[in-house]
Amino acid sequence: MVDFCVGVVIAAAGSGSRLGGSIPKQYQKIFDKPLLLYAIEEFNKITYIKKIALVVDNLEKVKAILQEFGLENAHKIFLVKGELTRHRSIRAGLQELQKNDDELRVVIIHDGVRPIIPESLVKDLVISADQHGAAGAIRPLVSTVLRLSNDNILEESLDRSIHVASETPQAFQLTVIVAAYNKCLEEDLDTGTECLQLALKYCGIRAKLIQGSEDLWKVTYKKDLYTAQASIREKKIDVCVISEEKISAASLLVDSLSNHVSTVKRVINITDSDHCSTEKKQATFNTVVLFHEHEIQDQHLVDFSTMLDLDRQGLIIHVIDNANVDGMQSMSVYNLHRSGRTMAHHYEKLHKGVVVIHCITNNEDQRLVDLVTSLILADSTTFSGQTLFI
Amino acid sequence: MVDFCVGVVIAAAGSGSRLGGSIPKQYQKIFDKPLLLYAIEEFNKITYIKKIALVVDNLEKVKAILQEFGLENAHKIFLVKGELTRHRSIRAGLQELQKNDDELRVVIIHDGVRPIIPESLVKDLVISADQHGAAGAIRPLVSTVLRLSNDNILEESLDRSIHVASETPQAFQLTVIVAAYNKCLEEDLDTGTECLQLALKYCGIRAKLIQGSEDLWKVTYKKDLYTAQASIREKKIDVCVISEEKISAASLLVDSLSNHVSTVKRVINITDSDHCSTEKKQATFNTVVLFHEHEIQDQHLVDFSTMLDLDRQGLIIHVIDNANVDGMQSMSVYNLHRSGRTMAHHYEKLHKGVVVIHCITNNEDQRLVDLVTSLILADSTTFSGQTLFI
Repeated sequence: MVDFCVGVVIAAAGSGSRLGGSIPKQYQKIFDKPLLLYAIEEFNKITYIKKIALVVDNLEKVKAILQEFGLENAHKIFLVKGELTRHRSIRAGLQELQKNDDELRVVIIHDGVRPIIPESLVKDLVISADQHGAAGAIRPLVSTVLRLSNDNILEESLDRSIHVASETPQAFQLTVIVAAYNKCLEEDLDTGTECLQLALKYCGIRAKLIQGSEDLWKVTYKKDLYTAQASIREKKIDVCVISEEKISAASLLVDSLSNHVSTVKRVINITDSDHCSTEKKQATFNTVVLFHEHEIQDQHLVDFSTMLDLDRQGLIIHVIDNANVDGMQSMSVYNLHRSGRTMAHHYEKLHKGVVVIHCITNNEDQRLVDLVTSLILADSTTFSGQTLFI
Repeated sequence: MVDFCVGVVIAAAGSGSRLGGSIPKQYQKIFDKPLLLYAIEEFNKITYIKKIALVVDNLEKVKAILQEFGLENAHKIFLVKGELTRHRSIRAGLQELQKNDDELRVVIIHDGVRPIIPESLVKDLVISADQHGAAGAIRPLVSTVLRLSNDNILEESLDRSIHVASETPQAFQLTVIVAAYNKCLEEDLDTGTECLQLALKYCGIRAKLIQGSEDLWKVTYKKDLYTAQASIREKKIDVCVISEEKISAASLLVDSLSNHVSTVKRVINITDSDHCSTEKKQATFNTVVLFHEHEIQDQHLVDFSTMLDLDRQGLIIHVIDNANVDGMQSMSVYNLHRSGRTMAHHYEKLHKGVVVIHCITNNEDQRLVDLVTSLILADSTTFSGQTLFI
């Protein structure tokens, strides 16, 4: 348990020159939310964290972002103007944390471009830092590390068993990291990047290194934005697939989704199963795929609504098996479109998109599964109101 | 110029335990093609490469894959059964390369789970290896590298300016790498992974290190598969957006796509521009977005077909601006679906999917752009035959 006060410095003042493009990486949007915001939200909700110094290149821009996402009054967050190097920016953040007597014992240092921060790791780091003076998250090396000479000639290949990649978060006793920044040289501030190294060099603190999960990587290149998107998606989509037992496409769909989303659950016979009626009271799914026979069954609409987490964006997909061809022959395309839009507007208030898929052709399970999977992995609003056919 | 014969060892016998899931990473599909195949195809088309030893864990499985993708008679490719460690597998591949007197002077060593291999880098490595004895691709370190003690305590933070990540391809004079494997110890074969290190330790060869592009990373974790998908997609989608000049959504679409695909080009007034009539003879686009007024214009269908690269999978999207509402009121949903399927079947022969988007609502440019972007980034067959509405 962490029974003392902890502060955070989030370093987000970089220019992101390695990413390419004109928007620095901390502002790139992942699911309509700037990358930076993921880290802020994670730290903001941890109770023992009392103060967050958010060091940014553009105060006005970040103020507007915080406002847009309802964090303008978050009392923990303090904006700090970034400086020319990572170390100088972090030092500015530390100065902000020391401004009032908040009795912060440990301070976490984190990069704003690392969106995924497991809470248990944060706790382990904070407790270790309190004991050892400093602690840092690490990952095994993916590639061998080589030491090279000035003219790009191999000098030595390092032993992978005793070398690791340094990630963040890192945590320090406040007194240790403040002392390290006070003692270090201008040269360190200009060319260094590793806070653990400052604590080692200037305070003799040998940090405890804790292995984190594979999500700890940093968004550096454009490709990393895609990775961030996939990783975040894996954590934010919870799918419930509701159908009668005989629907083979439903099990195929569960298999297809299981590798891409946070959770996927198959529920059979929603109207009469006891098993389900207890479970469905928990609003744990933000995405529901509902299989109907012939046409959309109204009682299903009532039943599944209690399972939906209405606070999170998500998607509702109605799959109509053996769709009613007579009805489709007598309905005009225009009316189809209008009813789709009406449905979409209705669900918009519940933060949900809605798509209807009519299945007319038999033995097209795989096509259906590919279609539903694509819809779920896309942004939930993009296809809302559309009617599709298999 | 490379005026001598070169061989390749592709190491693809790993179990991929870090990826999770039951399918080793080299067999994971990216756009319906096993990851491994991307590297094979790249090397197979380089003319100075005469022999490829493909070291795999499952000979039968890879034979079937080569057959499925039309490479069963590729005379350069030789399958070799992998062994327990990377070094042992590579040694087995080298033995295969030496079997006949093929006069190979340089041999490239590459990991099967690195799908993107710039041809110019391969050439630079081969020429450098011929001069220096060995050459390897490198990348700057993304994270600081730490040396740790047995009990996970920080010993030292390495200087990032003289350390780099070792990637592949690497290239060696055949005599050098064969000698290195002959001289090295069982311990090296069991615990080492770095071929440059063997050449250094046993032959005194200090490799030339050449910086490659950011695409050189290795698929290690599940998240890397998403990255691979995005990187490969960026290289394989060439979009042409055809519309009258006044269509504002078209320019918005070009901006939206430019960050995600290989090329995107706006063409104005396809029917009467000289500029266009010369260009359109080159079949360089696999994806075309065609804006129409009121309804699909038949003459466009003829004109744009010459721009389409029919050998590659792709998508044709018809966007109908100010769609004809009268027509939509008199057409039945069933007929709409049937005509969509007919269109999809027709384009299937040309390896193309087709989607029609009717725009009825005004001022919805952003929704349209999001929809078209999602369609283009999805697999081209998934939405083929669907009719969508804005």
